[in-house]
Amino acid sequence: MSTADVRPLAIAITTGEPAGVGPELTAAALTQASERWPSAHFTVLGDRDLLTSRAGGAWPETVDIEHHALAVPAEPGTLNAANGRYVLGLLDAAIDGAVSERFDAIVTAPLQKSTINDAGVPFTGHTEYLAERTNTPRVVMMLAGSSERPLRVALATTHLPLKDVSAALTIDGLVETLTIIDHDLRAHFGLPAPRILVTGLNPHAGENGYLGREEIDVITPALERARALGIDAPGPYPADTLFQPRYLKDADCVLAMFHDQGLPVLKYATFGEGINVTLGLPIIRTSVDHGTALDLAGTGRADPGSMIAAIDAAVIMARHKRSA
Amino acid sequence: MSTADVRPLAIAITTGEPAGVGPELTAAALTQASERWPSAHFTVLGDRDLLTSRAGGAWPETVDIEHHALAVPAEPGTLNAANGRYVLGLLDAAIDGAVSERFDAIVTAPLQKSTINDAGVPFTGHTEYLAERTNTPRVVMMLAGSSERPLRVALATTHLPLKDVSAALTIDGLVETLTIIDHDLRAHFGLPAPRILVTGLNPHAGENGYLGREEIDVITPALERARALGIDAPGPYPADTLFQPRYLKDADCVLAMFHDQGLPVLKYATFGEGINVTLGLPIIRTSVDHGTALDLAGTGRADPGSMIAAIDAAVIMARHKRSA
Repeated sequence: MSTADVRPLAIAITTGEPAGVGPELTAAALTQASERWPSAHFTVLGDRDLLTSRAGGAWPETVDIEHHALAVPAEPGTLNAANGRYVLGLLDAAIDGAVSERFDAIVTAPLQKSTINDAGVPFTGHTEYLAERTNTPRVVMMLAGSSERPLRVALATTHLPLKDVSAALTIDGLVETLTIIDHDLRAHFGLPAPRILVTGLNPHAGENGYLGREEIDVITPALERARALGIDAPGPYPADTLFQPRYLKDADCVLAMFHDQGLPVLKYATFGEGINVTLGLPIIRTSVDHGTALDLAGTGRADPGSMIAAIDAAVIMARHKRSA
Repeated sequence: MSTADVRPLAIAITTGEPAGVGPELTAAALTQASERWPSAHFTVLGDRDLLTSRAGGAWPETVDIEHHALAVPAEPGTLNAANGRYVLGLLDAAIDGAVSERFDAIVTAPLQKSTINDAGVPFTGHTEYLAERTNTPRVVMMLAGSSERPLRVALATTHLPLKDVSAALTIDGLVETLTIIDHDLRAHFGLPAPRILVTGLNPHAGENGYLGREEIDVITPALERARALGIDAPGPYPADTLFQPRYLKDADCVLAMFHDQGLPVLKYATFGEGINVTLGLPIIRTSVDHGTALDLAGTGRADPGSMIAAIDAAVIMARHKRSA
């Protein structure tokens, strides 16, 4: 760490969809996080009145609220496109603050894509928006457990129809994905020699071509190129037998080829405390791994576990980035 | 149960590939199972000398060995196509015995497909062979945990290249699959009102068609038809969030659309004690969920957990079938 850099770590939290659980989860999570991370400074982005009313108590004194005004009052559970640009404004402010290094990391509460789209702004998701706004040609979605359950699963493809997955896998794309994972695990996770286990695409990793050829034609050549670049990426392994303690104990991350190959087991294993990290960005961004839970909004019954884990991860990653 | 039918439950166990762990796992498992199930009678199919030498001790006295001679002596870890027809002969004898009701259920130790293929007999797998030999047009592969970890996952498609999965899903096929699961869970598992949770094919179950149309065009119509037949099959659900205790606690089975969507989480959750059950056959068949483990053969270090669970399941299913 640069000895001159004694500023507290500055973490921004966007509170997301105002009709969802984001505001109350942020309040609940920061009650714990502000005590656990006394050397960090938290800035919460959202409408002050909304955040006050949803907190179910006072916000911790050490937390700053950066006020962004709602267009119309938000009712728990009821989406309103009039607030679509408000949600996007929170995200823009956080991204700008991170790019300008005012923030060391940003944590995003869930938003509702339809609220933004219905406001007339095309929007396919947090991850894609972050990539576009920071001019990043390729990002990697990685889900991770809490520190007690440290499984990490990155995805080679994300939100694609299943039948399009095979065509989306390329040697270049996989090498870029592995390069990003390897870089970010070193720079932001403090892992000096990350080991990334890679799945096959087909059942039994294709069984020597008998159940599909992508392992032979695409994945294995990509792994050979990645290893020539110094990346520790063995595979491809059959996905159904890879997620066993005897394999995972020596791994820092699993790279799965597609969404439903890696995420059911990750979410099972992390007991709802998983987080979402976007790798490859010039900024650090973590997120909860769940949605807006409109049916729970305003009840105080939503579980802040994932938000707590996302904040913890942002602090830890920001600390590693500073000391890198 | 027919009050006249007081015969002990007759369970056949094929010991599979003679160079693999099947013989020693069978011996280890039966040491426990023969005490746990005093009302069952176990017949082990294999070469008497092989089984004696691999048992690492005596076989339980109550276990019958049905001798089938190896073509050539088997060395642990070394495959020999000369014994391919021996392996198939064990399976044929067990199937014939089950079809003629000499056996109430069969349990199969792992075999090596290549040993049989190299012996000049086309063979794609236990499940397919069982279907063909019993003239069964459609079977369903289901994996299950032990009684302590009772997750069950059935598959709508099994050993297909991933890119062929979408085209393999049809309304008729899914209705038949659900009918088989529903029937066998009632008849062989003693579940009077099975509840089968069904996944989508695409990420987030297609997100209303935004990430694929199979949920709208195929899966939902199939579920409507199944429900009209009295089958309790809600869905389609996003696979990544379905495998959570709050959903699974009310379910008897999850029907996943393809191999790597359902099996990584099943195998993670069952800690290597999962078993494989073939539904839809006129006979009861269970199996271990692992392979021949050639590197462990003859060492006595292979874990018999899955074989024990497979035997337990066969006994329990046979008992339910008799009392149905």
